[in-house]
Amino acid sequence: MYTKNKDKPDSNKPTLDYIFHPRSIAIAGASNNPASKGFDYLKALQVMNFKGPIYPINPKGGEVLGIKAYSSIKDIPGSAEYIISCVDAKAAMQLISDCRTKGTRTIHLFTAGFSETGEKKGKEVEDKLLHIARQAGIRIIGPNCLGLHHPNWGMGIGQAPFSIPGGHVSCLAQSGGHAWDLISRGSLNGIRFSKVISFGNACDLNEADYLDYFADDPDTEIISAYIEGVKHGDRFLDAIKKAASSKPLLILKGGYTAAGTRAASSHTGSLAGQSKIWDGLFRQMGVISLNNIEELIDALLPHVYFPPIKRGNIGIIALGGGVSVEAADACERNGLTVPPLPDELIARLKEFTATAGCGLKNPVDTIEIWNKENFTLTTKLVAGYNKIDILIVHAIIEMTSQWQGNSILDNIVDSLMESSRTINKPIVIVLQTYGTLKGTIEFYKVRKRLNKAGMAVFSSFSRAAAAISKFIQYYQKR
Amino acid sequence: MYTKNKDKPDSNKPTLDYIFHPRSIAIAGASNNPASKGFDYLKALQVMNFKGPIYPINPKGGEVLGIKAYSSIKDIPGSAEYIISCVDAKAAMQLISDCRTKGTRTIHLFTAGFSETGEKKGKEVEDKLLHIARQAGIRIIGPNCLGLHHPNWGMGIGQAPFSIPGGHVSCLAQSGGHAWDLISRGSLNGIRFSKVISFGNACDLNEADYLDYFADDPDTEIISAYIEGVKHGDRFLDAIKKAASSKPLLILKGGYTAAGTRAASSHTGSLAGQSKIWDGLFRQMGVISLNNIEELIDALLPHVYFPPIKRGNIGIIALGGGVSVEAADACERNGLTVPPLPDELIARLKEFTATAGCGLKNPVDTIEIWNKENFTLTTKLVAGYNKIDILIVHAIIEMTSQWQGNSILDNIVDSLMESSRTINKPIVIVLQTYGTLKGTIEFYKVRKRLNKAGMAVFSSFSRAAAAISKFIQYYQKR
Repeated sequence: MYTKNKDKPDSNKPTLDYIFHPRSIAIAGASNNPASKGFDYLKALQVMNFKGPIYPINPKGGEVLGIKAYSSIKDIPGSAEYIISCVDAKAAMQLISDCRTKGTRTIHLFTAGFSETGEKKGKEVEDKLLHIARQAGIRIIGPNCLGLHHPNWGMGIGQAPFSIPGGHVSCLAQSGGHAWDLISRGSLNGIRFSKVISFGNACDLNEADYLDYFADDPDTEIISAYIEGVKHGDRFLDAIKKAASSKPLLILKGGYTAAGTRAASSHTGSLAGQSKIWDGLFRQMGVISLNNIEELIDALLPHVYFPPIKRGNIGIIALGGGVSVEAADACERNGLTVPPLPDELIARLKEFTATAGCGLKNPVDTIEIWNKENFTLTTKLVAGYNKIDILIVHAIIEMTSQWQGNSILDNIVDSLMESSRTINKPIVIVLQTYGTLKGTIEFYKVRKRLNKAGMAVFSSFSRAAAAISKFIQYYQKR
Repeated sequence: MYTKNKDKPDSNKPTLDYIFHPRSIAIAGASNNPASKGFDYLKALQVMNFKGPIYPINPKGGEVLGIKAYSSIKDIPGSAEYIISCVDAKAAMQLISDCRTKGTRTIHLFTAGFSETGEKKGKEVEDKLLHIARQAGIRIIGPNCLGLHHPNWGMGIGQAPFSIPGGHVSCLAQSGGHAWDLISRGSLNGIRFSKVISFGNACDLNEADYLDYFADDPDTEIISAYIEGVKHGDRFLDAIKKAASSKPLLILKGGYTAAGTRAASSHTGSLAGQSKIWDGLFRQMGVISLNNIEELIDALLPHVYFPPIKRGNIGIIALGGGVSVEAADACERNGLTVPPLPDELIARLKEFTATAGCGLKNPVDTIEIWNKENFTLTTKLVAGYNKIDILIVHAIIEMTSQWQGNSILDNIVDSLMESSRTINKPIVIVLQTYGTLKGTIEFYKVRKRLNKAGMAVFSSFSRAAAAISKFIQYYQKR
């Protein structure tokens, strides 16, 4: 797995650093009911090992998850720099009034029922809330959102054990569901997150603030975003420009179509739309633009696993003729190149590869998966060719385990573990299943092993090629 | 699940009908070694309950899988209308010479090592083989292919238990891997196959023959194809025209790019390429064109589950705001329409739907999943609106089972089982997981249940919308 050199001096802390590093947390609406978010946030702090004091607030007092609870924020003995509000809108308002003497700097409102309702009253309550918070000098995350996920600081948007330990990918997401999905599926693909912020209606802190922060944050190397609407066009443009010029910036824009815009308005009260403007803007700024969460996760993988590279010449080793054709088509459809191997290299492969049914020109359709030494040699020879920048190796789980006992798939994986140590180029695995449950369960095990050894795993050539292509284009433009 | 009226009179059998309905089968190279195809084909005939006599051919004689084996095809007591050859090229040649008195009409050559090697000798052997077969009046499937899968006739390309019982989708596939993949993943999505033919190098019977046959075959309602190269352009055009005018024809064209063409040449000796010609041709003929096997399977689903419909107005019921935005964007990006619900319908939904955090304009972002009656009513109200043609219902497995006990997901599924009986419009389920293994295992169970009740299941809105859009466009053009 590739990590950039940390040769920058430790600069002054970015302005909003305190928002992401609270030293004490109160949870309003903390509860022993496992179905409630007031339980989930508290449990996450415990599971993820938050170091500072935690104050559950519950009108009934007593204990929540073994920690003394207070009936009001006013009663807590220390300060609560950060409050997570799981209470209703009215109680949230009271909460902000009550915490003035508690050193509170940030309130995250899981609480919904504001401008996203599309009703006049909801907007009025949101405005009033913002007014009170401003008077109290408190910044708001949300409302109507899951808030901050920061594994290395012991904070989670819920009990998402996949995301520990943290890493260097950050995300600002206007949807809590998308944030959760990204953390869950991303982690299962070996992505480690620095900070993921779900920010909902963004009545105070908005997308531009978070973008600015991640651009400055020394722990963030890659920025991803799910954005529905923009509060202040000019500020957002400046923030995009700044972020995209310093780090890879991947944006999934929601509310792209007319119906999507209507949905975004219901969701977070956002004014989205005008897809052509977004397209042009993203292209101009060097933003990597994605259409859905699967594409976003796919596109992150090369940034996590590869060093920066500007050339997209792909060497393909595949198991089967049809799959080889599909692999080559997928690469070239996505603007990558699959250069033919030179005759002397083909001759070298022929020395130990059974010919019948095997193409060796690149894609290399080899049946030498039966023989670990031959397979390792194949990967080294193909990757060793100076016109190859990235090696894609394909395996079908059911074909290599169910048909022939487990040893063949193990052969392939063992061989890749070995060759990845000497091949100084990115290796991507397309790990195909025939969709069987048994194959899928095996997929999880094998992916984890390959990810740990620094290899990105995709489930199809189309997805791999699309992601690699976006990565190469990004570095070509820089 | 939708099945077209079988109101056509039983026409005369199509010319090649005997190829697909052999009354006796010999397997050359039959073996007790479970790792061999000579084992796998024989086992498939047994598992799938082939009704006619089966003759294992093995030089050692004895028994294979409990059936008496013969050392030569010449020794079998009866006739072998159909031979599966798992022996090498030289032995296959001998086999054809030896079977002249055995009433053989078809030989399927799993055997490889012919024109696909790209070597002069391979082509010569293939030509010679064809010459001998023609003299003997025997048609060839292949060489270099998995041959015929015909579950209702007791024949399989291997032990693929998913494909029993058979159905009405047929496929001609120049790749055995693609054929296998289609049968496996297709079956797991509730697709039932009539006949799948993997035909490799197509030295005798080719894509045009199979297309013609499926166009005439009364048991085939939907034709799918994976084609790398074409032997005779004019005949192929005629076959495409005939097939596409009578039945939905879905084609995945391999060897679309330069590198893909090179791979296709190595794979099946095909001359592929010229993608623009293919594009234009497919458009003109009303062929549904796909880029990969996942797209092909996705695109088949509406044809299997829906009646013909020409309008693509989608009603969406989703769990979450970000997902609602994604759903609407995915539909409209793919040319579908997500019409806003009328005020009176929204008012009706509001009577029982909690407002905070819920958009009701379509997409309907409802939290009424907690309440089976309310959820059922929501689906019926949205589907009942006369401007809605198709209902898409979304569920996230982990959110509805892991967080809250299993009851919520069961609620949703039970509710769908009930409402699908009275809603007279297609219902599609987007069954999302956060990628956890537990969620994925649950996905298999729930998909199976929904499929059985006649509902297609997709894993994302993008995939559902793309498939539905292709289906609607097909019927709009007819």
